Amino acid sequence: MINRFQQLLASIRPVDMSLTGHIQAHLDDLTKPQGSLGRLEQIAMKYALATGTTEPVLRKKKVFCFAADHGVAAEGVSAFPAAVTPQMVYNMLSGGAAISVLSRHAGADLEVVDMGVNHDFPAHPMLRGRKIRYGSSNMAAGPAMSVDETLQAVMTGADLAIEAKAQGYDLLATGELGIANTTPATALYSALLGLPVDEITGRGTGLDDAGLVRKVAVIGKSLETNRTRLATPLETLAAVGGFEIAGLCGLILGAASAGIPVVVDGFISSSAAVAAMKLSCKVSDYLFFSHLSNEQGHRAVMKSLGAVPILDLDLRLGEGTGAALAMQVIEASVRIYNEMATFSSASVSGKNS
Amino acid sequence: MINRFQQLLASIRPVDMSLTGHIQAHLDDLTKPQGSLGRLEQIAMKYALATGTTEPVLRKKKVFCFAADHGVAAEGVSAFPAAVTPQMVYNMLSGGAAISVLSRHAGADLEVVDMGVNHDFPAHPMLRGRKIRYGSSNMAAGPAMSVDETLQAVMTGADLAIEAKAQGYDLLATGELGIANTTPATALYSALLGLPVDEITGRGTGLDDAGLVRKVAVIGKSLETNRTRLATPLETLAAVGGFEIAGLCGLILGAASAGIPVVVDGFISSSAAVAAMKLSCKVSDYLFFSHLSNEQGHRAVMKSLGAVPILDLDLRLGEGTGAALAMQVIEASVRIYNEMATFSSASVSGKNS
Repeated sequence: MINRFQQLLASIRPVDMSLTGHIQAHLDDLTKPQGSLGRLEQIAMKYALATGTTEPVLRKKKVFCFAADHGVAAEGVSAFPAAVTPQMVYNMLSGGAAISVLSRHAGADLEVVDMGVNHDFPAHPMLRGRKIRYGSSNMAAGPAMSVDETLQAVMTGADLAIEAKAQGYDLLATGELGIANTTPATALYSALLGLPVDEITGRGTGLDDAGLVRKVAVIGKSLETNRTRLATPLETLAAVGGFEIAGLCGLILGAASAGIPVVVDGFISSSAAVAAMKLSCKVSDYLFFSHLSNEQGHRAVMKSLGAVPILDLDLRLGEGTGAALAMQVIEASVRIYNEMATFSSASVSGKNS
Repeated sequence: MINRFQQLLASIRPVDMSLTGHIQAHLDDLTKPQGSLGRLEQIAMKYALATGTTEPVLRKKKVFCFAADHGVAAEGVSAFPAAVTPQMVYNMLSGGAAISVLSRHAGADLEVVDMGVNHDFPAHPMLRGRKIRYGSSNMAAGPAMSVDETLQAVMTGADLAIEAKAQGYDLLATGELGIANTTPATALYSALLGLPVDEITGRGTGLDDAGLVRKVAVIGKSLETNRTRLATPLETLAAVGGFEIAGLCGLILGAASAGIPVVVDGFISSSAAVAAMKLSCKVSDYLFFSHLSNEQGHRAVMKSLGAVPILDLDLRLGEGTGAALAMQVIEASVRIYNEMATFSSASVSGKNS
């Protein structure tokens, strides 16, 4: 497993910056004042570079929603009971969850991946069974996962991205579901980016003031308990991460390896992206941060990464909801690049000289 | 004409706020933590109130792009020659303009309305001939339009909104095209909102430093020349507006009268919205500001109105491009409201008590 993981990291190539001039020249020839489509032009540039072509296409899109339970939920760090994780998986499969609606709206396929939910699901065409364990261990008392389990989760995600590439998907989005998972995500930010726990810990699905104080303490205790297991990004992911986060980290690495851009959802998904970026510095060329989450701490994380998310809609739901919305903006950008007329073809006069 | 105009203003009703409780209760029963979809929930609320129902629908969408020329272009206030206005109309009709691409992407119909372009167009199914004159007069030397012409333009826009309602459109978007039209829009902001000209004048399609200084001077001169014609919003619109801006002001008033929400594009369209809001204080309940334009001054205008646009993508193109993108977010919000499961229907547990 460790060999395949090392091969995966080694296979991620930097994008070919020599294409930049050609792509920019085409953007500047479109019938609009230069740069007037702002971020749409930057997104089209990034998408073309990530896919390694001056003629980018966007045909099929897919949202992966990775689900898992968390042992740390036993510490009372979530406003909702852990039973909600499998209930919400069923809700997604029956089409009634927010991500069900928003992936339909974006014209994206949706697949739920059971990475570690504490429930046995019957087979379903939209559900991928990749359970590694029935939930992580309580990270306040020890490592959430073993390094072997973590590698297994990462490679599971990577394999799904590579499979998606083979199936003709051009753009992937990350989503997640797991009661209590803002707690490991926050711990990961603290360990990987050095951000102070009390500044980046938020209310998740709706903790009250006492719950928030408890959550900060639990995260601090988890980092202290696991302090000897935070030497590398992989060990950190194992010690204070979770199965769905490790899976998403792998999905991102696999997508970068396969040259597919990935749209990163909000607070939890961004922690998987940070882990992936720490494992390979080239990954960021393939990432779109979809939205600024309303969850406390996400702004500091984005600032720390120098990232400016595409949307800012005060979302704090996860599931991939912000990523699905941002997919439509990315698709708009690619269509602008491909479908607008050029000054010469449309007989439109240029700027006064 | 003035009678029809007064009737139009009188017909705009405040939304029925008594529906708020029912709409909020439904939003809170959807399978997500309360409020976790942030602005999507606020947008769904506003859309439902604007359409006067607790069961909102969004079937057909339409972008109106109003086009006109401006006499003030002769003062050298635009980086592009006036000939570009008709050239870009043709580009829109052949499907190659940015708004052509983005309205297709949004699943919205697009209609170009010739309100005052300095060119005779042949008939085309996507073009509505509503020319009032071959461009406005140079407002630096006198009023841009007469009050009668302005009323005619406003009522033309209002009639198009009312016709769209009859045709089954549920959501309209404003777009515009007119070389030099950031100049009258800026003059309108100064006259209607009291904002300082030098702080809100921007480079439009790409003025250099000397051009920007000239533009500020021309706007100042126009306001000075017309200082006795700025007593009412209607006279102001006539003196320092333009045919497409007056038409859009009418479209917004007509939509509010008919109970159709309108998505306002960027810098120019917002000036039409400000004029409409000055003519009827109830209009704002029907307006969505789509995006924060990168054109200097738009941020100050939005702040002055207390408005927070849906998107912030550094666009400064106009045509309705930002409005078309925001239509997709609004549609997502309405679909969330209509298509998500409720806690009871999906057997999902609520918050810990």
